[in-house]
Amino acid sequence: MDWKAEITAAAARIDGHVQVTPVMQTRGFGLSYPLSLKLEQMQHTGSFKARGAFNTLLSSDVPAAGVVAASGGNHGAAVAYAARALGHQAKIFVPEMAGPAKIALIRDTGADLEVVPGEYANALALAQAHEAATGAMQIHAYDAPATVAGQGTCFAEWDAQALEADTVVIAVGGGGLVAGALAWWQGARKVVAVEPETSCALNAALAAGGPVDVEVSGIAANALGARRIGEICFGLAQRGAQSVLVPDAAIAAAQRALWAERRVLVEPAGATALAALMCGAYRPEPDERVAVLVCGGNIAPDPFAG
Amino acid sequence: MDWKAEITAAAARIDGHVQVTPVMQTRGFGLSYPLSLKLEQMQHTGSFKARGAFNTLLSSDVPAAGVVAASGGNHGAAVAYAARALGHQAKIFVPEMAGPAKIALIRDTGADLEVVPGEYANALALAQAHEAATGAMQIHAYDAPATVAGQGTCFAEWDAQALEADTVVIAVGGGGLVAGALAWWQGARKVVAVEPETSCALNAALAAGGPVDVEVSGIAANALGARRIGEICFGLAQRGAQSVLVPDAAIAAAQRALWAERRVLVEPAGATALAALMCGAYRPEPDERVAVLVCGGNIAPDPFAG
Repeated sequence: MDWKAEITAAAARIDGHVQVTPVMQTRGFGLSYPLSLKLEQMQHTGSFKARGAFNTLLSSDVPAAGVVAASGGNHGAAVAYAARALGHQAKIFVPEMAGPAKIALIRDTGADLEVVPGEYANALALAQAHEAATGAMQIHAYDAPATVAGQGTCFAEWDAQALEADTVVIAVGGGGLVAGALAWWQGARKVVAVEPETSCALNAALAAGGPVDVEVSGIAANALGARRIGEICFGLAQRGAQSVLVPDAAIAAAQRALWAERRVLVEPAGATALAALMCGAYRPEPDERVAVLVCGGNIAPDPFAG
Repeated sequence: MDWKAEITAAAARIDGHVQVTPVMQTRGFGLSYPLSLKLEQMQHTGSFKARGAFNTLLSSDVPAAGVVAASGGNHGAAVAYAARALGHQAKIFVPEMAGPAKIALIRDTGADLEVVPGEYANALALAQAHEAATGAMQIHAYDAPATVAGQGTCFAEWDAQALEADTVVIAVGGGGLVAGALAWWQGARKVVAVEPETSCALNAALAAGGPVDVEVSGIAANALGARRIGEICFGLAQRGAQSVLVPDAAIAAAQRALWAERRVLVEPAGATALAALMCGAYRPEPDERVAVLVCGGNIAPDPFAG
């Protein structure tokens, strides 16, 4: 696949539908070196997921039955938002365990939302039944070329914002975002892929030589807790990424520091990349220029809830 | 006073001590036109006040006794932070009514902090006694040339970030920030000065032909609740600003919208400028390009408190 061309086409396709997110240079967080930050949590629905959702819908022949997703998280919100913006129906099956903040986020997009008792698997079964019964289109959260190309636009945009970095540090769940970075940069910048110790599907896959199922838990699990890394991500990461793990306590510390030092309020997943620097899981060389993607802001509880 | 020269000198003086804050173009908030935003709440200690504090300290002969301030808010935090960064002692008298979030903010700077029972006047009396006894320097929160020139660097920086706007909308408390904008632009851009109906010292002064005391209350009072507008601000605003008022409910709605749509979490004062657009207190002409300064992020309670 000619990823550069795919991502360039995706960027043109979604232009005007997604938010160009701001970048900044800063110091702090107990680090001796400066950082470039991209504040992608300011994207529509609070995460990078809107990019892949818009790219998928705009490059697909969406059926009259619209789209369907099973998700209690950022992907579901992004699909619902993009579908509404483009005039498609969206049916979202949300597992009750997603919690009120993310359920409210999806409800606010105006999607037809059904809260399903119990875990994700129950919501997925109903989504698949809906797909079979209506012909609605499912959008994969991370392991599809249009999704990866959409997420890759984040990094094309960052380059266009004059990013100066040798190394870019990115949190990993199912791997759509980091795959987008690897696909865009193709080795031109070093990519550090950060996972919680408690949800480490990429790290386990790299150790095993291929995607394997992992147990997921921990404070970032509702965003980064993929049981198995995507095949697209695995293929790109095997050749191009450095995998590091961080403890949940480091994620919590980075989340607090982003608020205390910079008034950036994020969910744990959004602080996971910074955590790798703060706790030393990744230590840059002297003069290595480091950039961090802040990827998600859907903190629970919502600060204005209740 | 040659304000352009003063602000240019201030910008050079505080360079490296303050955060260059990000800017973005966005749409939303129920508005039919795009906005330029500058996210100044990401400044050190969560507001623009750090600019004036650093400029004052760096252009003064600070006595060995250091600096003293009576403040339970953003000015106190900025003075404490700047003093610590520059190696000066800082004694801050905080009125108990400032509340735990702002008290913790000041405490976190490492300043010598004294919480004073009751209202601001009690803290001010102790600060004046401390000044008399020790020779420590007081820094005015808004009505001093070095403070205004420091705040003005925010707008010089925005110009250098290629701001495209006919009109810039800014919240007003004591008037140091809007004075900085008026001093920098000198009519080159229209300045809309927004105050809460419940704390409107500038609006009252413009109506009376000079600064007058006003009653202050409402949700933004702990940041915008100046009893009397600064003389410097009044002089500049009389010739150059359009004054508008917004109800507290509009401020609360703008605060929620900044979080819900853009994951920008601010205190009420930080949403007051946007509120003027959302509630129609200021309605731009067709094709008028509008920019909004987001000025403060020290929301109470702190999201990580408790």
